[in-house]
Amino acid sequence: MTQFIGTGDIRALLRRIGIEPFLIGLADYIETDFRRWERFEKAARLASHSRDGVIELMPASDGALYAMKFVNGHPRNTAVGKLTVTAFGVLADVTTGYPLLVSEMTILTALRTAATSAVAARALARPGSRTMALIGAGAQSEFQALAFKALLGIDRLRVFDIDGEAMDKFCLNLAHSGIAISRAASIAEAVAGADIVTTCTAAKTRASVLTPDLVAPGMHLNAIGGDCPGKTELHPDIVAGAAVFTEYTPQTRIEGEIQQLPADYPVTELWQVLTGKAAGRRDPRAVTLFDSVGFAIEDFSALRYVRDLTAAKSRDIDLIPTLTDPKDLFGLVAPQRPKWAMIAASTTVGSTRQVRSPASSTLSDVAPKT
Amino acid sequence: MTQFIGTGDIRALLRRIGIEPFLIGLADYIETDFRRWERFEKAARLASHSRDGVIELMPASDGALYAMKFVNGHPRNTAVGKLTVTAFGVLADVTTGYPLLVSEMTILTALRTAATSAVAARALARPGSRTMALIGAGAQSEFQALAFKALLGIDRLRVFDIDGEAMDKFCLNLAHSGIAISRAASIAEAVAGADIVTTCTAAKTRASVLTPDLVAPGMHLNAIGGDCPGKTELHPDIVAGAAVFTEYTPQTRIEGEIQQLPADYPVTELWQVLTGKAAGRRDPRAVTLFDSVGFAIEDFSALRYVRDLTAAKSRDIDLIPTLTDPKDLFGLVAPQRPKWAMIAASTTVGSTRQVRSPASSTLSDVAPKT
Repeated sequence: MTQFIGTGDIRALLRRIGIEPFLIGLADYIETDFRRWERFEKAARLASHSRDGVIELMPASDGALYAMKFVNGHPRNTAVGKLTVTAFGVLADVTTGYPLLVSEMTILTALRTAATSAVAARALARPGSRTMALIGAGAQSEFQALAFKALLGIDRLRVFDIDGEAMDKFCLNLAHSGIAISRAASIAEAVAGADIVTTCTAAKTRASVLTPDLVAPGMHLNAIGGDCPGKTELHPDIVAGAAVFTEYTPQTRIEGEIQQLPADYPVTELWQVLTGKAAGRRDPRAVTLFDSVGFAIEDFSALRYVRDLTAAKSRDIDLIPTLTDPKDLFGLVAPQRPKWAMIAASTTVGSTRQVRSPASSTLSDVAPKT
Repeated sequence: MTQFIGTGDIRALLRRIGIEPFLIGLADYIETDFRRWERFEKAARLASHSRDGVIELMPASDGALYAMKFVNGHPRNTAVGKLTVTAFGVLADVTTGYPLLVSEMTILTALRTAATSAVAARALARPGSRTMALIGAGAQSEFQALAFKALLGIDRLRVFDIDGEAMDKFCLNLAHSGIAISRAASIAEAVAGADIVTTCTAAKTRASVLTPDLVAPGMHLNAIGGDCPGKTELHPDIVAGAAVFTEYTPQTRIEGEIQQLPADYPVTELWQVLTGKAAGRRDPRAVTLFDSVGFAIEDFSALRYVRDLTAAKSRDIDLIPTLTDPKDLFGLVAPQRPKWAMIAASTTVGSTRQVRSPASSTLSDVAPKT
């Protein structure tokens, strides 16, 4: 049997543990996996683009476990009451190829994206950062806020969204979070004086959510919303003026803010900073940019984490058949066997196989054609 | 909610409909989709190879539906009581990206492989073919036999396997199938005089299950077992001497029997024969070869078929969250809201959204940092 973790299970898990402790634990798993980056088999995600959006498959394997996420991005979904991004994932055993669990990942993706942002900012933002500007108050926004509170101690937040109702929702959802939140009247007002600026907008265009005049020395930019070809958030001059950090560069060159720059523009991968192989922030006045598009290893970590958290009590689905004789798949679907075969087979001592013919010759009743 | 079709559901469906009628219906869906081949977005499967086997993702889309199969191939699994090949699949709505159903595909893969073989043979074998040799009596074998009976009227079958117990199982499983089955003492004995030869062996090597001396003029060869780099079943001279038909050629060049031949060796895709764009068998004495490796469109067809068969009564899993406000994913996992907010929100007439703040100014309690 295969473990199943539904949206109800994740909600119950978050209620039991608490969202911030969950994010702290998840960040640990992500950082652990980023530190052993070189042991993973990595690939840019396999995307299927359509007029309305994209469906992507994101596999990653460390040689012992294999994870795959199925995720969509459909900006117009909200108009029909559906989520822009939904996802589910699978964790499998590399030795047998069997799936171990199937899990919802709509909620998990929001959590792992936020945890990854916070892991990056912890390594790249100026020490003592307390204030974050958040541009975009959509489905990802509250998770970003709580991850930055839990992992970096961000306790002041200015939010801006062109949709006032989205800001209402954001403020209400985090009213008791312990973060002092203010609604900004403009992007400029939100960004002014912030230590960290997080952009998580949804428009599938080459947007300039931030323009160069808004970016002050020392800022850390956490750019979340640009994540596919033609979908960017930052003016190219901001990207070119920042120290740029990526997840998996071959994928980020296609999908990230750096798609606006030449294909050889120098970047540093986050795992290199976390392992000490490369420097992070070199100067308190430098602008650092985490050009985040989301990478499969983060989903691998998230699935590994929830598997460990739910191992004690899990519910199963019959996704994969269990056979007494693994060569006899047909036996699983065959019409009821005749009684004589059952009786004959029952005389086979100590066998755990499917019923067998007592004498194969009785079945070889047609002579070979010559 | 997302529909779930487990192994128990497929078994019940097959018992209700019958395996042969199921195969006939499935073959119709496959042939229909092959006939509109050019409308599909196609890609070679994304494989993750390890010491013990391979895990593959197989996506396909016709612009309205998107299918993805997760499938493994681990030849040594049978030694630990597990299946060599297991699979599950997903069918999604391209317009929203939402998964419509998750289904077991271990049984479905065996069925669709057999149905595809029979669709190909119906188009390529000599008319009036009645006798099939079957080399390999593993998990796929009975499904092949029944598909060829149901779709082509094959009623005489000679089977050979190096594992006598596998032959026992095969003969017993099909004892009441209406096919006259004989056990051959060798591959040569099985093949001699057969109209169609099906090879479905599992060894992950460059095997020569068939050698050129065994192949007679007019035979149709249905080569199923070779399906990844380094895993072939036919001597290269057989392949070079046959009219070769493929599913999706870019994938077959990597995985099929033609991996043994130059990369520009001429082949014909099956869909071209089915649509009349290309000739199939040109001569009663020609040897035709269906170099089958399994392609994602067959899984697409299988998922579409079982969805139509099970639409009336399905069971659901909570794989994707349902939200009243699609921008408020956090609302799904947020701790219980304070009572005043619930009361305030309830005054909003006609709203189907999540609870809202009655006055956003009460939440804007931190002045922008300057």
